[in-house]
Amino acid sequence: MSVIDEPATEALPAGGAADAKSASDKAAAGAGSAAAKHEKSDKHGKTGTVDAGRIDTVWLGEYLLGKWADDRRTSREQLKDERYHRIDGLPMPEHRERVLGQLHRLVADKAVHRAFPTRLGGEDNHGGNIAAFEELLLADPSLQIKSGVQWGLFGAAILHLGTERHHDAYLPSTMSLETPGAFAMTETGHGSDVAAIGTTATYDPATQEFVINTPFRAAWKDYLGNAAKDGRAAVLFAKLITQGVDHGVHAFYVPIRDLDGAFLPGVGGEDDGLKGGLNGIDNGRLHFDHVRIPRLDLLDRYGQVAEDGTYTSPIASPGRRFFTMLGTLVQGRVSLDGSSTLASKVGLTIALRYASERRQFAGADAENEVVLLDYQRHQRRLLPRLAETYAMSFAHERLLEKFDSVFSGKGDTDEDRQDLETLAAALKPLSTWAGLDILQECREACGGAGFLAENRFTQLRADLDVYVTFEGDNNVLLQLVAKRLLGDYAAKLSKADAGDIAGFVAGQVGDAALNRSGLRKVAQAVADFGSTARSVGMVRDEASQRQLLTDRVHTMVGEVALRLRGASKLSAEAAAELFNANQDELIQAARAHAELLQWESFTDALGWVEHPGTKQKLTWLRDLFGFTLIEKHLAWYLMHGRLSAFRAQAITDYIDDRLLPRLRPHALDLVDAFQLEPEHLRAPIATGAEKQRQDEARDYYAALRASGQAPTPEKSPKKR
Amino acid sequence: MSVIDEPATEALPAGGAADAKSASDKAAAGAGSAAAKHEKSDKHGKTGTVDAGRIDTVWLGEYLLGKWADDRRTSREQLKDERYHRIDGLPMPEHRERVLGQLHRLVADKAVHRAFPTRLGGEDNHGGNIAAFEELLLADPSLQIKSGVQWGLFGAAILHLGTERHHDAYLPSTMSLETPGAFAMTETGHGSDVAAIGTTATYDPATQEFVINTPFRAAWKDYLGNAAKDGRAAVLFAKLITQGVDHGVHAFYVPIRDLDGAFLPGVGGEDDGLKGGLNGIDNGRLHFDHVRIPRLDLLDRYGQVAEDGTYTSPIASPGRRFFTMLGTLVQGRVSLDGSSTLASKVGLTIALRYASERRQFAGADAENEVVLLDYQRHQRRLLPRLAETYAMSFAHERLLEKFDSVFSGKGDTDEDRQDLETLAAALKPLSTWAGLDILQECREACGGAGFLAENRFTQLRADLDVYVTFEGDNNVLLQLVAKRLLGDYAAKLSKADAGDIAGFVAGQVGDAALNRSGLRKVAQAVADFGSTARSVGMVRDEASQRQLLTDRVHTMVGEVALRLRGASKLSAEAAAELFNANQDELIQAARAHAELLQWESFTDALGWVEHPGTKQKLTWLRDLFGFTLIEKHLAWYLMHGRLSAFRAQAITDYIDDRLLPRLRPHALDLVDAFQLEPEHLRAPIATGAEKQRQDEARDYYAALRASGQAPTPEKSPKKR
Repeated sequence: MSVIDEPATEALPAGGAADAKSASDKAAAGAGSAAAKHEKSDKHGKTGTVDAGRIDTVWLGEYLLGKWADDRRTSREQLKDERYHRIDGLPMPEHRERVLGQLHRLVADKAVHRAFPTRLGGEDNHGGNIAAFEELLLADPSLQIKSGVQWGLFGAAILHLGTERHHDAYLPSTMSLETPGAFAMTETGHGSDVAAIGTTATYDPATQEFVINTPFRAAWKDYLGNAAKDGRAAVLFAKLITQGVDHGVHAFYVPIRDLDGAFLPGVGGEDDGLKGGLNGIDNGRLHFDHVRIPRLDLLDRYGQVAEDGTYTSPIASPGRRFFTMLGTLVQGRVSLDGSSTLASKVGLTIALRYASERRQFAGADAENEVVLLDYQRHQRRLLPRLAETYAMSFAHERLLEKFDSVFSGKGDTDEDRQDLETLAAALKPLSTWAGLDILQECREACGGAGFLAENRFTQLRADLDVYVTFEGDNNVLLQLVAKRLLGDYAAKLSKADAGDIAGFVAGQVGDAALNRSGLRKVAQAVADFGSTARSVGMVRDEASQRQLLTDRVHTMVGEVALRLRGASKLSAEAAAELFNANQDELIQAARAHAELLQWESFTDALGWVEHPGTKQKLTWLRDLFGFTLIEKHLAWYLMHGRLSAFRAQAITDYIDDRLLPRLRPHALDLVDAFQLEPEHLRAPIATGAEKQRQDEARDYYAALRASGQAPTPEKSPKKR
Repeated sequence: MSVIDEPATEALPAGGAADAKSASDKAAAGAGSAAAKHEKSDKHGKTGTVDAGRIDTVWLGEYLLGKWADDRRTSREQLKDERYHRIDGLPMPEHRERVLGQLHRLVADKAVHRAFPTRLGGEDNHGGNIAAFEELLLADPSLQIKSGVQWGLFGAAILHLGTERHHDAYLPSTMSLETPGAFAMTETGHGSDVAAIGTTATYDPATQEFVINTPFRAAWKDYLGNAAKDGRAAVLFAKLITQGVDHGVHAFYVPIRDLDGAFLPGVGGEDDGLKGGLNGIDNGRLHFDHVRIPRLDLLDRYGQVAEDGTYTSPIASPGRRFFTMLGTLVQGRVSLDGSSTLASKVGLTIALRYASERRQFAGADAENEVVLLDYQRHQRRLLPRLAETYAMSFAHERLLEKFDSVFSGKGDTDEDRQDLETLAAALKPLSTWAGLDILQECREACGGAGFLAENRFTQLRADLDVYVTFEGDNNVLLQLVAKRLLGDYAAKLSKADAGDIAGFVAGQVGDAALNRSGLRKVAQAVADFGSTARSVGMVRDEASQRQLLTDRVHTMVGEVALRLRGASKLSAEAAAELFNANQDELIQAARAHAELLQWESFTDALGWVEHPGTKQKLTWLRDLFGFTLIEKHLAWYLMHGRLSAFRAQAITDYIDDRLLPRLRPHALDLVDAFQLEPEHLRAPIATGAEKQRQDEARDYYAALRASGQAPTPEKSPKKR
């Protein structure tokens, strides 16, 4: 680790970045004020001349919008129309009607067809489609998710699991919303474990039909958007059975209601009723009693049944076939990651604007009470979450680019698809949980005003609640990530020769021995003896942050791998027990991996920032993100001898004493860069109303004092 | 620290309790099976014969109901009436109407007058009143909080801040709900800082009236239940000004609406509209334009104004008078502590029953999928929260007894009142935050089913959201606790002689030096070398848990005190800055203190448990609570050299490998002891429906296999 001293003045850039680029920046800025002015033009053609001490919010705003900035801007512009906006307190039936109407409006506004084939009126624009879709959250998450059901699930399943015949027959009416559709995968009895669903589709060669059947109550399709009211058809997932063989889960196109909205013969269902949020969507249940559909309505891209019932598939392995089919649906996870990030931006913009105006309790200044954001605790509550949101935003952009690359066919190998799935499975849990945490902290930071529906936090949080368990339960997704990490780890081991393995094991044991005797810590403690600034400098630079975060992932995975060694030789019971005994730690390892991905994305993003003021502040923000992660896992670092007690304390001090006070003056710029306009925020407390009230009160008291009519305060008897 | 080895078998009690009582229990149980049967009769007269390997849920249920069990039971029985139950999805106006009607029903059911004077039809039963009030949450938190506004705030303010004249004039119509009333304290501009409100009540001796005035927009009264629609009167807090002197905040009885519901002259207001929850309550704003009220309508227990305008008070210090007046309103905090605890019991009962039935993913057993609660991760998510809920429950009982003692006059010294306030300010933040966390984790643990309104989690959570910021913002309350801790600390120092102080400071410095050199850690690390069981045994016993938790509080307070030394000699700016720089840590110290209080309450409660099975399981649960706390703060213990890395790891292992598996079979008993009946839970997933569905599915597959008609699974090509 390199030791970099704290820059002496605030005017210098953050320093600390170990790469050559930021070092040269530092030199340039340090050389004098020649580099202190920065000129650039953004895509809108505006030219900003922003002081090097500040953030170029126009440039940063554009940067944050990412590769599909135009799609996002178009979507945001459309969503200024108040006919798209959620009306709080609307009873469920009216809310559902309103959202259905809004979906028709989205069609008219050409807002939702980007991902469909050009020949059918789409744009074959996969990344832009998701980007624009994410923005829909600004109007109403119900609108977002219902359009996700129609075009992102129902439509995308026809697109990706069907073939040209299905595209021609069903996509036009899907795109136009003539046929609202349900995505009938989940059952009451099976959510996360899709492979175990109970619905069957049995081929009958006599009539060349599939017979769709729900054998028991647990196999009812459940929680499906469009199922309770609007859906005319469904893409239904069922076990395909032909010639007495169960070929596993396949998708079928199944009409469910007639034009009058009545269930077709054999189809039944019920309404899921009121939910914790997203009540503009008509979620419901469906069941099928030997419903017959034509053979050709099997969506047969990955599995075909001939007239005589012979099954064929381009993918020989049933397991790989199943995961390939499910993999086409990854966009749901991708878009939830981006949506939660956007919701966090909304919440933080509102809460930080309020925190910059709202005053409470007298401070040293007799004239004015203290602004909330000047309290250390308030900074602690909001600024690390702002840093996390930036990390989420940059990580999401990376995910979206990967997604677009795979789905456009630019980079669509098996490994690409696996990487995409792992990335989505890693990032979606963190961002959806963070979204809830951030909206809640924002709501609490605004007190009673934060609890009013008009200020957005509570309803956004209620709607986003289910994001943590749908499109893959977060805990289940993290286990998928952990299994991939273990797999990579094992693959590396098997390739290595025996000597390497021995070395690895010895390294593990040696490491543990070192920790036990505490020798490493003693050495570090002695080396640490000195000033806080010098001590923290040893971990403050980018390379050290990376090393600490990376090391933790590797070590955690290695530790679990070591404990799982030989599990394959155990009985099924013993192996399951061993795995279960390490389940929590596995999930923690996956989390650590995802956090590292976020940190790396943030750090990569810094590399493209040229304006010194912007770069400096974003570097502090990245440091705050990195340090907050390290602080969160401090016990691990201490237990594994990676940090001494003294250095660990210095990290907390550095956050409190340096990073928070440094970033505080730039908090408003950092949320302004999210470029959310009043029509998107729609929160009275984010409008300056609080400042107006405070000013009025202060002026009143000043005038009263000047008038000589002010009452004198009762004196305490002790002071008389 | 004593070293107690792990008991060899599950049949032995937990051991580990260092006090003589549990030691003798251990001896008795260990002596043989003679003590293994346990007979007792509870208040219902039932005789339970419960095996020593199990929990006596009937006895434990009674024990948890606490001192005011009868009041709780009466309340729970009344609330089985579905006319009290919340109807999800009711539009706000209908919900408000329904709750108002329910309040009238509570009057008819004699459910809400326990705290009022016997001579006016009450019972002078303060503890029982709060106990019964807390249970109202089971029907609908809106019903609870609206009745809290009417009888707990409006009525209690008349009772505690007024004198007999006010009681006679206003309590009967308050008790009967003839006069719905608002508690007009908070203003748009000032919530936590009540002393800075802007509303004035200026005495006019010419007419012997007070003139109530709202001087600017920020001084509008805000977020008041009963203000938007139903309130006919308000207890209004305003700065009392007479003879040119401002005597600070006092309370006044102010009529606001006529019998037709129209605002009286000079009074205005508006509706707060939709909120994140509690929408059965008509929260709103009020403002006053020189409204005149009779002199005698000052609630004058703690401050009187004579006809000529002379002010007198039994409490000379304005500061102490203010805090005394506010202190009479502590019951709000007390009851929110109990209500959040009860909500957690509801959530955990539903989630643990579902987790005990729901299966997902195949395990080692080919016939059955794995029950959710058998997953380590699921245990980790729910069981520590169950332990926390028990701790909250026992701590709340202690708080309620203190409250009753003060308010009944049994123990009502200044110190008693201070202790009560500090206890409430410490416990309310932890339990209200825990309530949200627990309900959210329960909702996620139930997946999509958890998101349905019918399963209770989402709506309970939405309603309880505001509990963390009203009746004292949690962060502000914890700062009050921290200041009290610092005060106690300083008082102890000033009493000590100079030598002691020197010793203390030296101790602090010496301690730090020891940590820096890492010597203590090395010593501990060496001592630790050995088996996990032996190592954890060194902290597993009660005395060691206590020492670790207590030491942390003392050290944290001492550290902050040391850093704040000399603040009184600094300029106002510098002192404020110094305090602010330690704000986050102060709040952490207060949290640690509150956690210790919860742990001590749980431990005290164990002392009264006789049945060996019950005692053993509750001891494990207390250990889980204590260990989870220590694990949460592991970084602190490591940094301060209180735990070695090896021992720290052993704590996590002990939770995962011992406590969770041991408690898992008793999870259902532990929630059954909450004695919540179907009419209180009203959650379809807590009814056994899931098990029925699973059984039906399993029977279907078994019959299919037996019939020989089951399709064979497609074989993977590799296996052919």
